[in-house]
Amino acid sequence: MTSQKIGKRRPLLSSLQSPRELMKFSHAELLDLASEIREEIYRLYDRRSVHFASNLGVVELCIALHSTFDFSIDRLIWDTGHQIYPHKLLTGRFEQFQSIRTKGGLMGFPNPAESDYDLMMTGHAGCSIGTALGIASGDDLISGKNKRHSIAVIGDGAFSSGVVFEAMNHAGWIRKNITVILNDNKMSICPRVGGLSIHLDKLRMHPSYQRLKQQLHSLVDNFPTLGKSMDSILARFKNAVKAGLLGGMLFEELGFRYIGPINGHNIPRLQRFLKMARSINDPVLLHVFTEKGHGFKPAVNNPSEYHAPSPGMDNKISTDQFSNDNQIAPNQDETFSDQKIRDTWVREESDAEPISITGSFSTSASKLTLSATSAESNACVEICCHNENSTENDLSVINRVSFTEVVRNSILQQMRENDRICVITAAMCRGNMLEPIREEFPSRFFDVGICESHAVIFAAGLAKAGMIPIVDIYSTFIQRSYDQIFQEVSLQNLPIIMLLDRAGLTGPDGPTHHGVFDICFLRPFPNLTIMAPADASDVDLMLRFAVKSGSPVAMRYPKAKSGGYRINVAQIQCGKAEIIKTGNDGAIVVCGTFLETAKKAADFLYEKYKISTGIINARFIKPIDTETILQPIKNGGFIVTIEEGMLAAGFGSAILESANELNIDSRKIKRLGFPDKYIEHGERNELLDDIGLNSKNIIQVCESILKISKRNF
Amino acid sequence: MTSQKIGKRRPLLSSLQSPRELMKFSHAELLDLASEIREEIYRLYDRRSVHFASNLGVVELCIALHSTFDFSIDRLIWDTGHQIYPHKLLTGRFEQFQSIRTKGGLMGFPNPAESDYDLMMTGHAGCSIGTALGIASGDDLISGKNKRHSIAVIGDGAFSSGVVFEAMNHAGWIRKNITVILNDNKMSICPRVGGLSIHLDKLRMHPSYQRLKQQLHSLVDNFPTLGKSMDSILARFKNAVKAGLLGGMLFEELGFRYIGPINGHNIPRLQRFLKMARSINDPVLLHVFTEKGHGFKPAVNNPSEYHAPSPGMDNKISTDQFSNDNQIAPNQDETFSDQKIRDTWVREESDAEPISITGSFSTSASKLTLSATSAESNACVEICCHNENSTENDLSVINRVSFTEVVRNSILQQMRENDRICVITAAMCRGNMLEPIREEFPSRFFDVGICESHAVIFAAGLAKAGMIPIVDIYSTFIQRSYDQIFQEVSLQNLPIIMLLDRAGLTGPDGPTHHGVFDICFLRPFPNLTIMAPADASDVDLMLRFAVKSGSPVAMRYPKAKSGGYRINVAQIQCGKAEIIKTGNDGAIVVCGTFLETAKKAADFLYEKYKISTGIINARFIKPIDTETILQPIKNGGFIVTIEEGMLAAGFGSAILESANELNIDSRKIKRLGFPDKYIEHGERNELLDDIGLNSKNIIQVCESILKISKRNF
Repeated sequence: MTSQKIGKRRPLLSSLQSPRELMKFSHAELLDLASEIREEIYRLYDRRSVHFASNLGVVELCIALHSTFDFSIDRLIWDTGHQIYPHKLLTGRFEQFQSIRTKGGLMGFPNPAESDYDLMMTGHAGCSIGTALGIASGDDLISGKNKRHSIAVIGDGAFSSGVVFEAMNHAGWIRKNITVILNDNKMSICPRVGGLSIHLDKLRMHPSYQRLKQQLHSLVDNFPTLGKSMDSILARFKNAVKAGLLGGMLFEELGFRYIGPINGHNIPRLQRFLKMARSINDPVLLHVFTEKGHGFKPAVNNPSEYHAPSPGMDNKISTDQFSNDNQIAPNQDETFSDQKIRDTWVREESDAEPISITGSFSTSASKLTLSATSAESNACVEICCHNENSTENDLSVINRVSFTEVVRNSILQQMRENDRICVITAAMCRGNMLEPIREEFPSRFFDVGICESHAVIFAAGLAKAGMIPIVDIYSTFIQRSYDQIFQEVSLQNLPIIMLLDRAGLTGPDGPTHHGVFDICFLRPFPNLTIMAPADASDVDLMLRFAVKSGSPVAMRYPKAKSGGYRINVAQIQCGKAEIIKTGNDGAIVVCGTFLETAKKAADFLYEKYKISTGIINARFIKPIDTETILQPIKNGGFIVTIEEGMLAAGFGSAILESANELNIDSRKIKRLGFPDKYIEHGERNELLDDIGLNSKNIIQVCESILKISKRNF
Repeated sequence: MTSQKIGKRRPLLSSLQSPRELMKFSHAELLDLASEIREEIYRLYDRRSVHFASNLGVVELCIALHSTFDFSIDRLIWDTGHQIYPHKLLTGRFEQFQSIRTKGGLMGFPNPAESDYDLMMTGHAGCSIGTALGIASGDDLISGKNKRHSIAVIGDGAFSSGVVFEAMNHAGWIRKNITVILNDNKMSICPRVGGLSIHLDKLRMHPSYQRLKQQLHSLVDNFPTLGKSMDSILARFKNAVKAGLLGGMLFEELGFRYIGPINGHNIPRLQRFLKMARSINDPVLLHVFTEKGHGFKPAVNNPSEYHAPSPGMDNKISTDQFSNDNQIAPNQDETFSDQKIRDTWVREESDAEPISITGSFSTSASKLTLSATSAESNACVEICCHNENSTENDLSVINRVSFTEVVRNSILQQMRENDRICVITAAMCRGNMLEPIREEFPSRFFDVGICESHAVIFAAGLAKAGMIPIVDIYSTFIQRSYDQIFQEVSLQNLPIIMLLDRAGLTGPDGPTHHGVFDICFLRPFPNLTIMAPADASDVDLMLRFAVKSGSPVAMRYPKAKSGGYRINVAQIQCGKAEIIKTGNDGAIVVCGTFLETAKKAADFLYEKYKISTGIINARFIKPIDTETILQPIKNGGFIVTIEEGMLAAGFGSAILESANELNIDSRKIKRLGFPDKYIEHGERNELLDDIGLNSKNIIQVCESILKISKRNF
């Protein structure tokens, strides 16, 4: 390749119709393709600030992936996403490629709006594994087991994120056939921190460590045999050493089969190990070493500078700056037995590179571990399906008609009608009374443990696969998922239903458990619908609405009795409030469970002052029914809003915003909710009384409004 | 003990003045104390719904902790916190104990307001390790290295949380002398899920597994020696097997020394192993088996029912329901060498229980690992201190006077003046331009990797120890810390300074990276002060204010030039806005970096219409300066607010709330900010123009207000 080629038309990229064509490319053609991709990225880098070295580092990996898998069927998630450029070039975006990161041009991150090959818009680190696991679980339910393969490509920097651990932990438990590719940059510009990085470094080429490993290897292989029974123990023993000392133990302990490390710039070798990973019916971690800036010497020599360089940092490219150094012919297609996997590893990697095989994934010691694991895993699943699940701090005496129970019954009914619905809990099976769902639909019920962040990421994967996941988490605990509600739910606009149980005051547990912030933190998210049922009558209607909506929905309800069923309930309509009672002088607008409270206040106001007060069940916090709710104000009346959440940025605040937008005088709007402080523990009703979320205070507020605006009456 | 004793005065508990007295108690007295604690908890459980079985399970552990450590000096964090009852009884709250979980009574969770022995109010799972690590780091800086010991007690259910992994990973890296006690309930009511639980289960009594381990043990010990050089390899080899097969490898791989499992109901044994843990200058994981409901047979037999039982579930207690089954005399106080640790383990645990020693913490293979680790760790720290740190997706061309740089310089200056200030980054050392701080103050600079949740938990620990931590994270990425900002920052009211860089539109990275939600999600949190500098002049003032404030503060600023320094800048005062320019007809209220934009609009309005428009620099988003900001409205004028964030629940919304509270007509308040949709990528200024956050639109809005309210002018 010469510098003259830079800027010229790319014959392979420009004629590529589909990434599936790569499967028929010769090895030489794949190498040429790698060169074209590098040239195109360089051309881009020459123009503006882009992610450069990281994209050069994954060229071969990306080609190997697309020439091994058909990602119109299989699933590929790029974690964090700034290393997406080669993928964009291979999936139909060559013509627009140079527009990347400009307004109206291609995005610098994966973007499902650009291509079906971009599954998720990713930018925040660590979510790829949970998403891939969710997709695999959904695909298994919809397409049948293992018909599609899910792959997550994640960098070593992102690997320390807690959500990665939560996802690995879950994957090792439910043992879906997914492959995690750990893209480990040999020449990382960022010193990784953390104990994990030490572990990864141990898997690298550390001469004395390697020597020790090799010595141990031969020592193990030359052990005397000590009779037949001892033989089998010895076999386990040998392999324990291999697994324990020679790498991957951390991942194996979590239930993954570890393969690696592999040279990430050798296409045929990558293809072979990708096929191997596909053939293993277990979660696999494929550890790939790549070099940031690979193929472009200045970037390799100074990857830090070239991570996201200023445009035109170099004035010209000399012929020796680009290189293709992996001229190894690919092997024929083949299937892999366990023995073959080990042999392949030994033959290809242990010869070619100074790092020995871990062998752990196929050794009998590992099998002992895995089969023990498997056996225990099945046993545990068994227990999981019958045992009563934990309730973290849940002390509620569940009433016959608690919201929790009404909601559960509604879910159960709808799961019977719609096999796309599945339920996810974060160790709150018991608190959310989900046991009957677990019993009746074990394959559509997922307990991820106390891992709320992962619960939402996993749900996003399920939704992407076509399921309708219901995430059932206490309001206070879903705070752990804030960033995932942003990126995985709202930004992707996926049909995920979030049930926020215990929204409001939870009683004796106190401030760590009150769910008082959810309205405020959910309200600014685009695409999200937020509802609050006033009583049991609303629950089923709302859940049916949510299932059909095709976009994300949150429903919040308190740790309280559900207030029974009303007659003549209005049908649900997106963004429409329900008028419970009309009134000439004003209205009480109820967000949540205050219908009875409002009724008492309205009755009193009429009896004492002959003030005719309507009652509106807001139902929707977002989109809000401005028309219905503000009508009393337009008629010269008042409204009092009541909500079980913080006043700052809450439901009443949304009404004020709407009034402001419509240029309506909002002085006769008064809001009841929680003030700017933490509320102590106590019985819910005691606390609500203290704060003034009761009839008495509604009446006082109305009296106060009426006094102020007496002339209007 | 007989049932007659139930309800009687507890002689030991009632006369206990300080938990330090426990150090002088005889073993028999400690056993009696355990009985009294159980009786008192039972008495409580007989009255109302409380956490029961989990508290019975930690009675001996709690006694062992308080009789080994002096927690007026050492540090103890109870994760999740509902197992705090024995601790409350031992730390001066016996008299109020029966008021627990009632309004005005003791809280059912740790509460620093009740006792100095409760360090943090914990309720959300998994934060204890990060907090303990932060406290240990702060104590080392303030009191001198290893003068105080930090302990986190965490249940196996909470252990799968991502924040636990992030903290373990960080602890294994910075190697503080902390002890994590994994309180593993043998008879857990909740089936743990996840690969980790399989790992923990392997450490349990699995008969065939135990047999295998014992066989391997003797096999290893009987290996033939093969010459001197082989000997040392063999030693490593043996211990690799022990570490790899016999447990704790997962934790060891993260840099922890694993000890266990230990019987958690044997006080003298617990005391011995706690002393051992204290003597090890490394993070230690002490794996303790406890039994939920221990000592109360009905609860042991049915821990699920007794996790949080209804009051009066039992009518009477028979004499055999309580038991004290650990009549082992305590050993004398002693110090521990590595050899002694191993010997102690072998003597005490391997004899007493069917689980063999892991030996991994003191074996030479482990040492190999650890020393390799240590060596690499030091090397990495070395690199960490000199290498340019990663920037996740950061493409900013840093201007000479970017906010990022101005902020960094201000931090640096204040760190020189105040040795309590420290800085935490989540792998954004470069993006936040913190390298000079890392160079000058390596001991007060912490890079936790891409672990934003842990960053905030760790900061809380540092603050608890007396440091003033500055957490410097991009606005979009601190979304990962939402729940920690709730529990660790706002609820604890700790002096943590959160710097939200890249708040607003980040430009070409697009919607995954724009920081548009922070005002909305921070605003409802009590105790928190939120500021937005208008330009460089504000930065230093605000940061000095934050350092002195003694409570949590957030400061947000965009990826933009900082606009230089003004002359005659008003001094900073909590909750006070700065009047940049007075005006008779109205004002533009600037939240953040729109001073120039406002000035252009005001000039135009005067030139074209002779409308005299003031400019107010809001400075504080919370508490908001209602008086200054609403004055133009009170004077019959208008205000236009402008902010680089979502309109829903944002800064302008806070103004509307204030106006509503003050009964002010808000029709002449208009708000500019981001609408309810995701904003694409592009240059920041292009995007701001598109959305109308510019002079032109301010003018149009003013024209519109004036037209509507023409009669006022």
